[in-house]
Amino acid sequence: MAGVQTFVHALRRAEALAGHREALVCDRTRLTYHEFGHRLRRLHGALVELATDPGDRIAVLSFNSIPFVELYCGIPMAGRVQVPLNFRWAAPELAYALRDAGARVLFCDRDPGGLGDIVERVVRIDLGEYDELLDSAPPLEFDDDALREDDLAGLFYTGGTTGASKGVKLTHRNLVANAVNAQFIQPMTVDDRYLVMAPMFHAAGSISVLQSVFLGATQVILPAFAPAAMLDLVAAEGITQTLGVPTMVAATVEEQLARPRDVGTFRVYAHGGSPIAMEVVRRGVQAFPGTAFVHLYGATETAPLVTGTADEVALLDTEREKSAGQPVMGCEIVIRGTDGEPIPTGQAGEVTIRGANVMAGYWNKPEQTSAALRDGWYWSGDVGRVDEAGYLYLLDRSKDMIISGGENVYCTEVEDAIYAHAAVLEATVFGVPSDEWGEAVHAVVVLRDGESLTGDELIEHCRALIAGYKVPRSVEFRTEPLPTSGPGKVLKRELRAPYWASRDASIG
Amino acid sequence: MAGVQTFVHALRRAEALAGHREALVCDRTRLTYHEFGHRLRRLHGALVELATDPGDRIAVLSFNSIPFVELYCGIPMAGRVQVPLNFRWAAPELAYALRDAGARVLFCDRDPGGLGDIVERVVRIDLGEYDELLDSAPPLEFDDDALREDDLAGLFYTGGTTGASKGVKLTHRNLVANAVNAQFIQPMTVDDRYLVMAPMFHAAGSISVLQSVFLGATQVILPAFAPAAMLDLVAAEGITQTLGVPTMVAATVEEQLARPRDVGTFRVYAHGGSPIAMEVVRRGVQAFPGTAFVHLYGATETAPLVTGTADEVALLDTEREKSAGQPVMGCEIVIRGTDGEPIPTGQAGEVTIRGANVMAGYWNKPEQTSAALRDGWYWSGDVGRVDEAGYLYLLDRSKDMIISGGENVYCTEVEDAIYAHAAVLEATVFGVPSDEWGEAVHAVVVLRDGESLTGDELIEHCRALIAGYKVPRSVEFRTEPLPTSGPGKVLKRELRAPYWASRDASIG
Repeated sequence: MAGVQTFVHALRRAEALAGHREALVCDRTRLTYHEFGHRLRRLHGALVELATDPGDRIAVLSFNSIPFVELYCGIPMAGRVQVPLNFRWAAPELAYALRDAGARVLFCDRDPGGLGDIVERVVRIDLGEYDELLDSAPPLEFDDDALREDDLAGLFYTGGTTGASKGVKLTHRNLVANAVNAQFIQPMTVDDRYLVMAPMFHAAGSISVLQSVFLGATQVILPAFAPAAMLDLVAAEGITQTLGVPTMVAATVEEQLARPRDVGTFRVYAHGGSPIAMEVVRRGVQAFPGTAFVHLYGATETAPLVTGTADEVALLDTEREKSAGQPVMGCEIVIRGTDGEPIPTGQAGEVTIRGANVMAGYWNKPEQTSAALRDGWYWSGDVGRVDEAGYLYLLDRSKDMIISGGENVYCTEVEDAIYAHAAVLEATVFGVPSDEWGEAVHAVVVLRDGESLTGDELIEHCRALIAGYKVPRSVEFRTEPLPTSGPGKVLKRELRAPYWASRDASIG
Repeated sequence: MAGVQTFVHALRRAEALAGHREALVCDRTRLTYHEFGHRLRRLHGALVELATDPGDRIAVLSFNSIPFVELYCGIPMAGRVQVPLNFRWAAPELAYALRDAGARVLFCDRDPGGLGDIVERVVRIDLGEYDELLDSAPPLEFDDDALREDDLAGLFYTGGTTGASKGVKLTHRNLVANAVNAQFIQPMTVDDRYLVMAPMFHAAGSISVLQSVFLGATQVILPAFAPAAMLDLVAAEGITQTLGVPTMVAATVEEQLARPRDVGTFRVYAHGGSPIAMEVVRRGVQAFPGTAFVHLYGATETAPLVTGTADEVALLDTEREKSAGQPVMGCEIVIRGTDGEPIPTGQAGEVTIRGANVMAGYWNKPEQTSAALRDGWYWSGDVGRVDEAGYLYLLDRSKDMIISGGENVYCTEVEDAIYAHAAVLEATVFGVPSDEWGEAVHAVVVLRDGESLTGDELIEHCRALIAGYKVPRSVEFRTEPLPTSGPGKVLKRELRAPYWASRDASIG
């Protein structure tokens, strides 16, 4: 059936149920759902001119903003494919994604530099070109019959274990499934006022955009995160829900304890993207006494939500405080051994996931797609176990990855950048504990004979090649060769272990 | 992707989250989800022997019972198609459905009479044959890869405007979508204890079976409805939710007012299937002071849920007390004129419905399928309007149908039965107001010259041909010809109007 579960359905529902209510609020701008819908129909008119073929990729490089929410919704509604870009990435990383996606148009809120040469057309949001585009475009009604639920809605680039980032293909149905799944963990009504806080290019930032539209709820947009700005918005706009990565949660908890605002409307504070220290939740209860803390687990590949807790405050001081919660209704989890067979309840194995939210694959990467998707199951690379009530406990990652401040950092990618320096003979990268970032990127390096290099010089070298959050925060030079296993693979766990000896290993 | 949204997924989830908790309770039998799952795997082993080909139809004629719930779940999980039969139907109606479906096996809890000759095999639940079957069958694991979400899960027979009943084809995905949709109106958790009360062959009776399994909630089964039995179960089993047709709600409200039980656990009393008198809700508030009354609207063709209210008690004495609520998240409503075009908000037209819950069509009825399903929209035959917040108000039925005690009665079908009597020259059938049934079936008849017939004789004649609830409750004989419009069609509205002059026309 054409168009059963698409972004268009969400907008239609919002206009029918909440046409005169606030859809989007950012700075001094307030749009009702009718106004939002009207702007999306103009954007539709503009997009079919800019990117003439259904399925064309259109990239967005922007802080959170009303145009970003409109492009997030409007590009898929126009039958085109959105490609949101991580603004923390270095120029070569952005260029790779643009080229890999074959994007024809780039919407950006800053000088695109050399990126402008990769696409046919740049639309500068910051110079008013986006508004001009909308003003001059004829409104164009959405054509349900042209849109199918299995059509691609977006390519979401995420770090890759083999160095290059991968475009995660999410369809309309994947993202609608996530909106439905999210409704089971963070139910929303037309009266909710959701704060869009984490960066929207990241699954954690855009997790509730489509859900909010479906429910006719209001989205209040925070362009760039700062703890005081967040709390001022919660108080001024009567925010009821938001999601942040743990570093954001920790910073706002401390700010609220130091300078309390009236946060009486603030019902749900969700967090995800990386492990949270339970101490943050404990202090959170003092800072936000009426607020439920909800732990979410997911991945870009699962659009993203997989499991969630009810109010974590009730789990404090129980075994389950370390759990990532139970699978949402539309999502199935099976823990498997390396042979692919399910493992008995309670034992650890790789977390595999199935549901209508699981990606269609990686763009242009058939081999990595077949490795990640097997018989309809997504192999997450996370190691975990479930208890007899289906609560998931994450133990380790089977992928060689660091989660720093909510961002995935694939070690290979950082190692590649380090090896690109002529003075480097051997290098390995892993995460070490960080109170601020959860994990911090740490490098161990052996230089070639006769070469000299400081940690700062190496860090500077990396900064030109990869995003700031991927650059090592600390570098340790060794003169002896790195320890290896039989086949020559560096024994990373051996190097990593001393840093984590006193820490709990659970993540999520 | 194979098996993404199937009944098997629901059972897996329940066993993972609530394996040791109660799944089913009926009389003195209590089964955990592990026991339920084990029985379903044995049923699987039995079914593949009884009905050897995937897609084979298997009929069930039974009061509500544990075997009925197991067959409702287990037949689709085995890749076969369940055909629940209305036990109120007369023998010719049951025979028609069995033949039309081409059912190979009939499970029944009574003597099947001549129906036994239509199928290859009868399994008598009442004689212990069902239990024997389960005891002797080898447990057979469910094969996800053999099951696809678009596979048929059941044929649900519903009255037809052209006389014969129609088998509504619902797929796994349709029924999973309904389970998700229901979760938005009647959210359930693992702690809920749902009372299966309305007959399960009817969409109102089975509406929450799959949802309960998904959530790992307990289903307590009432084999045959009686107000005192219902209230005793609510008190004894700590029932939290149920759904009844309005006549059931009215009867239990009066019983509770007369002989109050402890109903402190009873959180949600949903009703649907036909219009409810607001007076029932008003008295319901006195009888069940802590209970939310929820109005649901749907159709067999939509698996069934389309709209629902929040607690109706809050809508009392407002314009919206007459509303059937707002569309569930996964379901879209558009009001259309006869030209198929959407009609402006507030104006009346035919209710058309779209969503993953909309049936795949009618079994063996391509013409009726194309009339009901156009461009992915289901044309409900109901006339309604929506307000600016998406609340649906049902005004009339464009189909020639009566809703009596929650059952759809198609007038043509009753008229055909009347015309089958040799003494009848002309006949027309319509609904008249009934405090007990909402509407009661009324016939106006003109006899052939020289013939004589009493109302009771005509009623007796009909009883042999059609279900008791379809048989006219009253017959009016006329000697003058029935009034007709230009093309000879009986002016039913003209005959019907005097009965309804003092009543409100809204239904739903």
